[in-house]
Amino acid sequence: MIKAAIVGYGNIGRAALEALCSAGDFSVCGVVRRSGSGEGVPELQGIPVARRIEDLPQKPEVALLCTPTRSVRETAEAVLKLGISTVDSFDIHSQIPQMHAALDAAAKAGGAAAILSAGWDPGSDSVVRTLLEACAPRGLTYTNFGPGMSMGHSVAIRAIEGVADAISITIPAGAGLHKRMCYVQLKEGYDPAVVKRKIKEDDYFAHDETHVKFVPDVSLVRDMGHGVHIERKGVSGQTHSQRFSFDMQINNPALTAQIMVSAARAALRQQPGCYTLIELPPVDLLPGDRAGHIARLV
Amino acid sequence: MIKAAIVGYGNIGRAALEALCSAGDFSVCGVVRRSGSGEGVPELQGIPVARRIEDLPQKPEVALLCTPTRSVRETAEAVLKLGISTVDSFDIHSQIPQMHAALDAAAKAGGAAAILSAGWDPGSDSVVRTLLEACAPRGLTYTNFGPGMSMGHSVAIRAIEGVADAISITIPAGAGLHKRMCYVQLKEGYDPAVVKRKIKEDDYFAHDETHVKFVPDVSLVRDMGHGVHIERKGVSGQTHSQRFSFDMQINNPALTAQIMVSAARAALRQQPGCYTLIELPPVDLLPGDRAGHIARLV
Repeated sequence: MIKAAIVGYGNIGRAALEALCSAGDFSVCGVVRRSGSGEGVPELQGIPVARRIEDLPQKPEVALLCTPTRSVRETAEAVLKLGISTVDSFDIHSQIPQMHAALDAAAKAGGAAAILSAGWDPGSDSVVRTLLEACAPRGLTYTNFGPGMSMGHSVAIRAIEGVADAISITIPAGAGLHKRMCYVQLKEGYDPAVVKRKIKEDDYFAHDETHVKFVPDVSLVRDMGHGVHIERKGVSGQTHSQRFSFDMQINNPALTAQIMVSAARAALRQQPGCYTLIELPPVDLLPGDRAGHIARLV
Repeated sequence: MIKAAIVGYGNIGRAALEALCSAGDFSVCGVVRRSGSGEGVPELQGIPVARRIEDLPQKPEVALLCTPTRSVRETAEAVLKLGISTVDSFDIHSQIPQMHAALDAAAKAGGAAAILSAGWDPGSDSVVRTLLEACAPRGLTYTNFGPGMSMGHSVAIRAIEGVADAISITIPAGAGLHKRMCYVQLKEGYDPAVVKRKIKEDDYFAHDETHVKFVPDVSLVRDMGHGVHIERKGVSGQTHSQRFSFDMQINNPALTAQIMVSAARAALRQQPGCYTLIELPPVDLLPGDRAGHIARLV
């Protein structure tokens, strides 16, 4: 059994606990959360809860970092220092190279593995994009998201002063372009025009057409479904018009957490260092031994 | 530049030459074919052609085995013995585990890598199936092929006594079931009933509904297009009805050869041994360095 801890207990943390408990090859060492307590949370009864990973009764081999994406680096570096491998779903695409370098150094220093950006995008979608380039090296890939709530984008809005609650819905606009529909519940006394400007200036939104709508109660429009349509038309050798597409309609936190759990397995099968999903043999994501998977899946 | 040779010069061999010449990181050391000559083949002018790989003027680092699937093992073992890595598109699913063991031993003895079953199915489809299990560990995956000509199945019919020419078309019947439509041109004096029985008894056809039609000229029905629809509905953590699908419509030899060329790159990045595509980091299939791909594709 792989000894795993969950760090952070929001949507992804809860789904990670479900995924760990559903897998047959993990034992849950505990949950790390700011409150340091599982009081009032039914599913945490009987599970150790602590403020720091060092305070859990048993040292985990791997930690699922379910904290907001912007605190992933600090959390990962602290955990890797203890010799505990990490998995995160860091989702700011433009910052992945510098995160990779930082976590690679931290992982090697700690003698552990860091699996970076192990969600669905970045994550499993990245594997699909890589595979399609190997199939048709020349051509265009379009990744079309949604319709669905982007968790990273929603968290980014909620971090803005004056926002009581918010969600960001991604609407596919074709050819890999998207609109961002932001539904925002204001705190009393804040100027909607200022909040709107802050949202549009945020790096999460600055590159897309973004619309901000103010609503009285965000909970009435919240839905965790999401989807993606990846398409590539390209050239294999000298043969044009090779066509590929990948579609999914999924519950977002459930899929993100499941991929993190699968990646936690892979973490323990790698040499120390940092890896994104495209750097991992896909079979390492599955439980049990390779031979059975080769016979069944290849 | 990676020094590569092509062994066998049928449909896949020709497409492999196109894919090698289209890639920027390969040089073609030569083509190995029974005749030992490229006479009368325009695209082989200026390319060394020999009967044995040892007779090529320059020793390749990797050989693309484009021979019929049933002679892959013998060819691979001979090539690996010379310390040359191999890539094949061996496609008899049920025999992959034993091939894996045999080529792993041969590759380790020769200090080279053997990439086994590096076509699209087995091959890139295997990667998709593996990834989808990591995304939703419980559930069902259906691989629906076609409509399109199966090259392995067609070669298997042509090996039967009395067959002048033949193709086998795969028709998807839903839920991963298929019909096999075989179009056969008989040699004079052979009994169609005997040929039909031999086809249906062949391991390629014994497990599917198979229909054999006799036609006067197979060339009039030949078309190299093919396709696949892979679908999975499953459970991530405790969330049901996660839905995934992968589709492609492709030229079959062009895609097979392209994946073999991509796998040839990966071969030179692995420790000695045998690998199927699900055992390779996907990024190893692409030319150039990892950092750029991580920044661009993750």
